[in-house]
Amino acid sequence: VLRDIRSRWRDRSAADVVRPREQLSPAELEQLGSTLEACLSARGGEVSAWERAADVAETYLALGPGGRRAFLSLLAARFGAAPEPAVEAAQRVVEADGPRERDEALLAARTALEPRWIRLLTQFNNLVGGTKFLVDLRADLLPLAAGDPRLSALEQDLRHLLAASFGAGQLELRRITWDSPASLLERLAASEAVHEVTSWDDLKNRLDVDRRFFAFFHPQMPDEPLVFVEVALTRELAHSIEPLLDPAADRLDPAEAEVAIFYSISNSQPGLAGISLGGFLIKQVVDELKDELQRLRTFATLSPIPGLRRWLDRVIGDPRLPIGEEERAAVASVLRRAAAPADGAVDAAREPLLQLCAHYLLNARRPDGLALDPVANFHLTNGARVERLNWLADPSAKGWQASLGLMVNYRYQLKEIERNHEAYATDGTIAAGAAVTGLANALA
Amino acid sequence: VLRDIRSRWRDRSAADVVRPREQLSPAELEQLGSTLEACLSARGGEVSAWERAADVAETYLALGPGGRRAFLSLLAARFGAAPEPAVEAAQRVVEADGPRERDEALLAARTALEPRWIRLLTQFNNLVGGTKFLVDLRADLLPLAAGDPRLSALEQDLRHLLAASFGAGQLELRRITWDSPASLLERLAASEAVHEVTSWDDLKNRLDVDRRFFAFFHPQMPDEPLVFVEVALTRELAHSIEPLLDPAADRLDPAEAEVAIFYSISNSQPGLAGISLGGFLIKQVVDELKDELQRLRTFATLSPIPGLRRWLDRVIGDPRLPIGEEERAAVASVLRRAAAPADGAVDAAREPLLQLCAHYLLNARRPDGLALDPVANFHLTNGARVERLNWLADPSAKGWQASLGLMVNYRYQLKEIERNHEAYATDGTIAAGAAVTGLANALA
Amino acid sequence: VLRDIRSRWRDRSAADVVRPREQLSPAELEQLGSTLEACLSARGGEVSAWERAADVAETYLALGPGGRRAFLSLLAARFGAAPEPAVEAAQRVVEADGPRERDEALLAARTALEPRWIRLLTQFNNLVGGTKFLVDLRADLLPLAAGDPRLSALEQDLRHLLAASFGAGQLELRRITWDSPASLLERLAASEAVHEVTSWDDLKNRLDVDRRFFAFFHPQMPDEPLVFVEVALTRELAHSIEPLLDPAADRLDPAEAEVAIFYSISNSQPGLAGISLGGFLIKQVVDELKDELQRLRTFATLSPIPGLRRWLDRVIGDPRLPIGEEERAAVASVLRRAAAPADGAVDAAREPLLQLCAHYLLNARRPDGLALDPVANFHLTNGARVERLNWLADPSAKGWQASLGLMVNYRYQLKEIERNHEAYATDGTIAAGAAVTGLANALA
Amino acid sequence: VLRDIRSRWRDRSAADVVRPREQLSPAELEQLGSTLEACLSARGGEVSAWERAADVAETYLALGPGGRRAFLSLLAARFGAAPEPAVEAAQRVVEADGPRERDEALLAARTALEPRWIRLLTQFNNLVGGTKFLVDLRADLLPLAAGDPRLSALEQDLRHLLAASFGAGQLELRRITWDSPASLLERLAASEAVHEVTSWDDLKNRLDVDRRFFAFFHPQMPDEPLVFVEVALTRELAHSIEPLLDPAADRLDPAEAEVAIFYSISNSQPGLAGISLGGFLIKQVVDELKDELQRLRTFATLSPIPGLRRWLDRVIGDPRLPIGEEERAAVASVLRRAAAPADGAVDAAREPLLQLCAHYLLNARRPDGLALDPVANFHLTNGARVERLNWLADPSAKGWQASLGLMVNYRYQLKEIERNHEAYATDGTIAAGAAVTGLANALA
Repeated sequence: VLRDIRSRWRDRSAADVVRPREQLSPAELEQLGSTLEACLSARGGEVSAWERAADVAETYLALGPGGRRAFLSLLAARFGAAPEPAVEAAQRVVEADGPRERDEALLAARTALEPRWIRLLTQFNNLVGGTKFLVDLRADLLPLAAGDPRLSALEQDLRHLLAASFGAGQLELRRITWDSPASLLERLAASEAVHEVTSWDDLKNRLDVDRRFFAFFHPQMPDEPLVFVEVALTRELAHSIEPLLDPAADRLDPAEAEVAIFYSISNSQPGLAGISLGGFLIKQVVDELKDELQRLRTFATLSPIPGLRRWLDRVIGDPRLPIGEEERAAVASVLRRAAAPADGAVDAAREPLLQLCAHYLLNARRPDGLALDPVANFHLTNGARVERLNWLADPSAKGWQASLGLMVNYRYQLKEIERNHEAYATDGTIAAGAAVTGLANALA
Repeated sequence: VLRDIRSRWRDRSAADVVRPREQLSPAELEQLGSTLEACLSARGGEVSAWERAADVAETYLALGPGGRRAFLSLLAARFGAAPEPAVEAAQRVVEADGPRERDEALLAARTALEPRWIRLLTQFNNLVGGTKFLVDLRADLLPLAAGDPRLSALEQDLRHLLAASFGAGQLELRRITWDSPASLLERLAASEAVHEVTSWDDLKNRLDVDRRFFAFFHPQMPDEPLVFVEVALTRELAHSIEPLLDPAADRLDPAEAEVAIFYSISNSQPGLAGISLGGFLIKQVVDELKDELQRLRTFATLSPIPGLRRWLDRVIGDPRLPIGEEERAAVASVLRRAAAPADGAVDAAREPLLQLCAHYLLNARRPDGLALDPVANFHLTNGARVERLNWLADPSAKGWQASLGLMVNYRYQLKEIERNHEAYATDGTIAAGAAVTGLANALA
Repeated sequence: VLRDIRSRWRDRSAADVVRPREQLSPAELEQLGSTLEACLSARGGEVSAWERAADVAETYLALGPGGRRAFLSLLAARFGAAPEPAVEAAQRVVEADGPRERDEALLAARTALEPRWIRLLTQFNNLVGGTKFLVDLRADLLPLAAGDPRLSALEQDLRHLLAASFGAGQLELRRITWDSPASLLERLAASEAVHEVTSWDDLKNRLDVDRRFFAFFHPQMPDEPLVFVEVALTRELAHSIEPLLDPAADRLDPAEAEVAIFYSISNSQPGLAGISLGGFLIKQVVDELKDELQRLRTFATLSPIPGLRRWLDRVIGDPRLPIGEEERAAVASVLRRAAAPADGAVDAAREPLLQLCAHYLLNARRPDGLALDPVANFHLTNGARVERLNWLADPSAKGWQASLGLMVNYRYQLKEIERNHEAYATDGTIAAGAAVTGLANALA
Repeated sequence: VLRDIRSRWRDRSAADVVRPREQLSPAELEQLGSTLEACLSARGGEVSAWERAADVAETYLALGPGGRRAFLSLLAARFGAAPEPAVEAAQRVVEADGPRERDEALLAARTALEPRWIRLLTQFNNLVGGTKFLVDLRADLLPLAAGDPRLSALEQDLRHLLAASFGAGQLELRRITWDSPASLLERLAASEAVHEVTSWDDLKNRLDVDRRFFAFFHPQMPDEPLVFVEVALTRELAHSIEPLLDPAADRLDPAEAEVAIFYSISNSQPGLAGISLGGFLIKQVVDELKDELQRLRTFATLSPIPGLRRWLDRVIGDPRLPIGEEERAAVASVLRRAAAPADGAVDAAREPLLQLCAHYLLNARRPDGLALDPVANFHLTNGARVERLNWLADPSAKGWQASLGLMVNYRYQLKEIERNHEAYATDGTIAAGAAVTGLANALA
């Protein structure tokens, strides 16, 4: 019965009934401000307030980027906490006499300090389609917020509100198959950020009998994937991405699979950036796979190393890098190549590159002590260990550009996940297989 | 895959595997406190934190009233905001120099003032079954909070958190029929607070072809009704509850119904007290009924007047009451009757009682100017008007005890709902039919 | 879009819009006959034919028993095969010269011999709600068909048509719980033929955590149970029905159950009499239970012996019965009791009765060599064995009346089901436990 | 619980666990024959018989064309009715004395004449996945049956059995959208027989906001479309297929549509050939569209004329054709063109071609008096009328090859459907618009 703001807007724009408007006149902005004030006022009862919030949301959805920016600035500028009452409330806290009076002053100060946009955001959240509306609002807001303290504060509050709605227990894990809706598959393909989906055949291959594909969903936005993972079932730890992406490669009877390779994890909602969902996804998918396939013994990724080349470019000329001059030259020469070499073509660089890569993964750190490589940091936080490096594992243009074709297997050993996680979280200890440690040590 | 704390607990207690424990030893309480601290610490990652919160929630569910009280006191006493940093943050606000510094100090103060239980409550909310867990936690908390400032602050924060989850757009309206699950019907019958359900036959009658029964649900607690309304389809405005509750009464072909009588509205979740859902329920049910049944013209209630006798007992001896002495005596005599009289038995009191009742509904006010009668206040806030009073409309023991058998029809006229609501919200103006106004005026 | 004849009729009769008509005038019957002819004619296309068949079906549903009898007689009398063409076709078969000509004559004869009602029944089956319509038509027809060759032939054809729709692969096994629709539970309770359901509490007890309840459904009549079985989970082979039917009895944690007792199997559709569904039900339920509950070791029934007293009444005076005179007198005395005795009250009769009961189950046969007792025959056909007799197992009035309070456990041993079945089907060999065989042998 | 023969086989062949076997050895065929005999024997009970039938069906599914042919021949040769008992039964019919004896002999003869494969087919139908199994079995059988009396008789019986399962009331109408499963869309695209689907973009265009796409399904084969129709929503009666198939064409707000153009109807199941489903599909889709879109006034097709060129090639040289010599030459010249001309290029032929086309549609008849053109016959049987001819409406290679680019609108006028249908079914009267009649008359 209640109108669904998103699907209404989608239907109307799909039928070209509405088209995005780029600009808002000052009068229109003023009108919007008044409506937002009315949303906050007690007048009109809950049903009327709800209708007003729905009107505002529909207006927003029909705006282009310029109009949206104007709206968000209005929200941040006019609907924060009023400073004078806030300062006065702080004053009363400072002056409070005795614990009970202090407690009361603190309670009053909390209310005075709370920006008014909190209630507006809550009202949007309560619309039909409101959750997705806020996720997309945050996607609009994120690039604008950097450097603007008010927009930034608004963005933070929005993040907290969304984090409270996207907890693990509120998400739904669904297996994606070739029987899933075409619209959903199209959306998933469009947000695959690791290994681009090039065609419907490519996509169908990733849903074949020896593959698994899982995504998280939220009940309030049931046809919008949040984050997804692609898994290949194999007999051995995969050392190259090519056969996994090749529709013509042989298929394996899943009952005979011993290894599950997580070869792609992507987010579909830019508005959920910074709200961590991937760790729960991996944990639950591992549980599902163990249930379904009794012979599976090994759970591991085949992952890109997105920061490798950037780091190499920076350090290769650094004399403190503990590497022989011959090897340094060989690596530098490889760094100048525009594309992946044929196997065997750059043999002299192979070993030093593997050693430098191991060094990068195990020793290159952010200021806070965590791993510099973002993908490494993600899996290490989840309790994986660095299992194996793979030479020429992704010879695609993108793979060469980001990591010189190298890929890494992170392995999830169920009995050690908790211990690995704790050690990494506590003092930055990185778990690694003997071979990888050996490569890194050879350098040092 | 993730454990559902509620259904796990329900299964285990249904099979007598766990039984509620009344007391917690000091050591157990201390242990609970440590686990709650660990939930808040960064250590262990999101999955571990989630598991810990689930453990705490399962522990809570297995406690009896005494144990639960101890847990809630621990939460309120130990997981508020730390006072010293809060006062210091307030101090920095007061001392801030210039708007930018002030803004930053205000932002920091907000964080410092926030009780730590906020994050714990959010973690509980993120469990599978967490929403219902928090609703029930609040049901436990409400009777304890009165008079205790900390428990009261905890209760308030819990109310805000729940209000953000139970917005109209997040609720699902479902029609309840005899095809609904028996467990659900049993639960609805148990929480019928207006006209008690006396048997399965009674319940089945309320789901007959000329009845409608709707309830709100939340997606995170799909088999738990939140609030529900019972509707009878009739040809005329009902003037007595008896035929509506009589399983042997004639049925009407719903296609011929012209009037929809809302004869019962009840809440099923004590933990949602103070979170208003009934207004949206009535609005949506009216919309559904209009869609389904084209001949419906009138939407009205047949409502109890729960505060009438209490008010009469108080005012009947008051000489300022503008009523003749003969009538006063007749009414006083009726007030002394233990049960409803036969029709015609107390004719002398009938007219004065109706006048006093109209006076009560239209003129008896709370200090804030709203109607004294809680049911009147609910429907007037929703935009209804006082349409008609009905003599001997509910001769049951309960009906006699609360309102001398009188009932009232509140009418929802679609075109006037908004206007009525605004007038009542703005200056307390109560819309009423001419007959009711006439009765009230006769007195004055 | 297409009208559902059954739910339309149900809605209209629920709202008292239509009431059953007992009689059809000759003109109305003639009109019905013409419409049936039109259903068979090529004229009007498939959509028109469908509409006509739906009209006839709705007419039938609105008739009382008398009207229905007239309709069925019309169908049987006027819509069989025309005799003259049939005899001519047979003549051509007899006169056919050579195999090819004979084959063609046989094919033509098949068509000529086919009653016209076959096509009408198929048209009814193709209606929305048509399957349930035919099931109920057969329920009306069965008591009329006995002794009437034409109605009997019609009934047989209807049985074949239904048997082709109610194959195992077309049925859906559903677990029934307290979360099932109240309307469904009410229907199941009404058709419980073994141990009457006396109240909603009784029913709820049969759906408790240590019970299982399964029913077969057909996709074309999704809210109509076909046949159902009630199971109790216990630690030991049950020897009395009383604790199973007692809502106050202790519950068992299902994870600890070792025995599944099938204590009631009933049909809900009289129109499916003679179409065997129970064997598949037991097989599938055993599979489901094995999957769910790992500790289950024993699958057995606790069954009535419905033919025992009738048989005893007949044979107890027969001097050929191999029983001592003292025992015969004791048994005869028990047979005269109006109700079950207290335990210990008829000790002298106990042993002879158990021996006679074993003798009855193992040796009393129908003319075709199968077990005389219908419940015994059902379970033996399904591959069970006679495991144990239970004295005073059902002291209810019905239990005493039918089988002197005795009940029997039939046991399904998964590895022996096929062998038992084959032996029983081939030469009537009945599998039995040593104790039962011993009892029977003691007599002989 | 019961195995689903189809999905089991599909899973196993998808994982390359089984591969089709082309040949069956004589011993294997003999073994199959024995298993089929066992299926028919009473031995083993219903569960065993069911298991055996499932084994046979799985064996069949794993066969290639050669193996399947051998199986079907075995079935037809060995499992018909035994001729001797059949002839004897016919003999008894001929010799029967008196109506009652005759009735009994006729009944017995029916049984004797029934091929044994009937019961085998019924057993297959009762498997999980059995309905689809039989549909595909018939698809295999149809090309083999022509000219072989036994296979033909088997095929006929299979058709009757399927027709009884695919009645209108047993089918489910589903709207197909871009949210439908990708696997289903792929299957629909593959069986589009009128206007080939060339890409996923082409398919998505046919599911756009101003399109509707409906298919019939059967509950026993829920992911297998049976027959489907594609509809375009427009403002005017479409005169060309090109804009309808052009993904770049403008979209219409569906709320403004006045015309629904049925531009493609295709069957997806070769095994259902000859079982008419399209008429019900059109009727139900018209009902759905009227419900959804209030402004729709006109329901019409844009149809190919598949027999036009074949007919023209045959008659153009016939001197009896009532056409001027100039026009005849112009048409003959057009018939020799390999591809569609540009608009205006063959102006001289345009009018005569339209006249000949109108003549073909209205006057060219099959021996039984119905329209020669199969698509015309389909729509006329459903009650449509020939509304308008469209020149250069389908200039594709296929359109030119079959019908010289001409297309026709058949119009469904709701009030005249029944009348049109009756007139056409009774005496072949074809309803047509004045313009089409004028064109045909111009010729005569």
